[in-house]
Amino acid sequence: MNPPHISYEPGVLRILDQTQLPGTIVFTDLRSWPEVAQAIAQLRVRGAPAIGIAGAYGLAIAAHAAAKQGLMDADFMRELQRAAAGLIAARPTAVNLGWAVDRQIKLAASGNAAKAPPLEIAASLDSGARKIHEDDINACRRIGENGAALLRPGARILTHCNTGDLATGGYGTALGVIRSAWQAGKVERVYVSETRPLLQGARLTTWELMQDRIPHVLITDSMAAHFMQRKLIDVAIVGADRIARNGDTANKIGTYGLAVLARAHGLPFIVAAPSSTFDPAMASGGEIVIEERDPQEVATFAGARSAPAGVVAANPAFDITPAEYITAIATEARVLHPPLDNAIADMLSRTPSLASATR
Amino acid sequence: MNPPHISYEPGVLRILDQTQLPGTIVFTDLRSWPEVAQAIAQLRVRGAPAIGIAGAYGLAIAAHAAAKQGLMDADFMRELQRAAAGLIAARPTAVNLGWAVDRQIKLAASGNAAKAPPLEIAASLDSGARKIHEDDINACRRIGENGAALLRPGARILTHCNTGDLATGGYGTALGVIRSAWQAGKVERVYVSETRPLLQGARLTTWELMQDRIPHVLITDSMAAHFMQRKLIDVAIVGADRIARNGDTANKIGTYGLAVLARAHGLPFIVAAPSSTFDPAMASGGEIVIEERDPQEVATFAGARSAPAGVVAANPAFDITPAEYITAIATEARVLHPPLDNAIADMLSRTPSLASATR
Repeated sequence: MNPPHISYEPGVLRILDQTQLPGTIVFTDLRSWPEVAQAIAQLRVRGAPAIGIAGAYGLAIAAHAAAKQGLMDADFMRELQRAAAGLIAARPTAVNLGWAVDRQIKLAASGNAAKAPPLEIAASLDSGARKIHEDDINACRRIGENGAALLRPGARILTHCNTGDLATGGYGTALGVIRSAWQAGKVERVYVSETRPLLQGARLTTWELMQDRIPHVLITDSMAAHFMQRKLIDVAIVGADRIARNGDTANKIGTYGLAVLARAHGLPFIVAAPSSTFDPAMASGGEIVIEERDPQEVATFAGARSAPAGVVAANPAFDITPAEYITAIATEARVLHPPLDNAIADMLSRTPSLASATR
Repeated sequence: MNPPHISYEPGVLRILDQTQLPGTIVFTDLRSWPEVAQAIAQLRVRGAPAIGIAGAYGLAIAAHAAAKQGLMDADFMRELQRAAAGLIAARPTAVNLGWAVDRQIKLAASGNAAKAPPLEIAASLDSGARKIHEDDINACRRIGENGAALLRPGARILTHCNTGDLATGGYGTALGVIRSAWQAGKVERVYVSETRPLLQGARLTTWELMQDRIPHVLITDSMAAHFMQRKLIDVAIVGADRIARNGDTANKIGTYGLAVLARAHGLPFIVAAPSSTFDPAMASGGEIVIEERDPQEVATFAGARSAPAGVVAANPAFDITPAEYITAIATEARVLHPPLDNAIADMLSRTPSLASATR
């Protein structure tokens, strides 16, 4: 058993560097918010819930640094706002990052309004981040249970990217559903799409499934249709980086194609995500910003070149799956069924902290 | 301009080693049929038409060797049959290999029946292979013209794997269509899917398009759906390794998924292949043997490991696209339109050499 991939003591965030997995297990200490932002941008910590947690800790680190500098009142808050903007800018697509950082900013603002000293505010952000972290682990367990209830025994499940322990505070979203279903004796086999260009499926999901001894088969992204055609896949389960009010879902590039293929083969397509992934500010997927990453990621892997020097490549890191392709969304509160716009509105109305989010 | 990627002088087949492209340009001389079979199995020469040509030259090499050994009559023919079986076994899915080798065997048998001396038979196989090679280049040019006529000006074309000069005697099938359409001023841009696991799109197709200065963008296989959704792709064009009598088409893994995605987005899906790719012995795609290759190809990327040691992976090298997903098949003789079973039967009835082929 490895130590947790994210751990924190006041002022220091320790992360397992996911870019080095599975070959090398190395933990890195991040001691300033720009270091946290850089680690998020470089995908050393990744996964929508996990970068939310890292962002929350990053703001706590910023608060400690500002307190140490002797900043107070408006200066202190200005410095936190600067850190918040820098952290949120590290990756644009996952809403959890902005959600968690905003929550920390509100906590700091209320401490500041109550004339709390900076060091006390920093300590409250430590607690706030720990709370987000713990809540996420608990949410994942409930997502797992809620999602697993949707599966039939003997399920042969396709999943994409990494949505496990590493992508969250712990346990996982889509991979949490698979873990819960496995514990309930419902899983025959998991098809893991490698998830080009950064191969989170090949590198991270197989690594997690090996540790849990859940039977799995690694495939290239291009093989999913073939295995659906051969009737070897019963259901697809993926995570989400941002879900609009109508249910349109941004997730790792390749997700939309899998959703279309699942539909064409009559297979259910399930999204697993905590309620922090819903963005009440977005009416539909068309409003979601898709992160464009360095094209060199497409022309290489782990330093090995796959294409001629100077090749032109495209590298959208996410795509949008329209709500109509989604059979169900498993959240920690409940399972949402179509029509998703109504189900989401209803869920948000019972979760005032989400409905009022604005970022 | 590089020398041709396949060239021959009696007894020696010189190939450009495609496994080393695009980084290294190295030609290898193959001087025995087992060396040719090995080069085919290792994908140092690849592409359905190209391996047919290599197989034909391989049998000519076998004939020279048998003649040198002093084998005659039945012994000579037995040795050729042994070579034919070994060459055909190198890769099971592409029909062109068996087609070309069988054609050479028939040529040898008729020479033998006419009591021609072994060295003379070997010379006739040299000519037979050269004829298959030249015919393929000519066929590709006609496929190119026939296929290009199907495209509208400004076409943004998705293609998969490598179907170019390197995959054929020269010019290409799907890439031949793109070349002809480019010369006719019809191509705006080519989307090149990288084609995991062996990256023929990234390594070979971009390399050929660069040489011809045809605008192109490299994408991962998982991005095709996204660019279709964004209305940036107008048509998909692929090659084929074997086409059954009903039009079901075996081609590089990932093709079937692209066909389903094209259908879902209302895009034409065009197959480009010479008539030697049709297999009259196969009623439908269900009868086509899909080559399973080493799973390690999936667990690595351009030589770098992408998954934990000991991972279980699947590696079907091809998939079957049902005829119903195919808008048209461009051959050297004509363009086949649905219903493809009728169109294929009609074409085969006018090509007696094909209709009588048995493997």
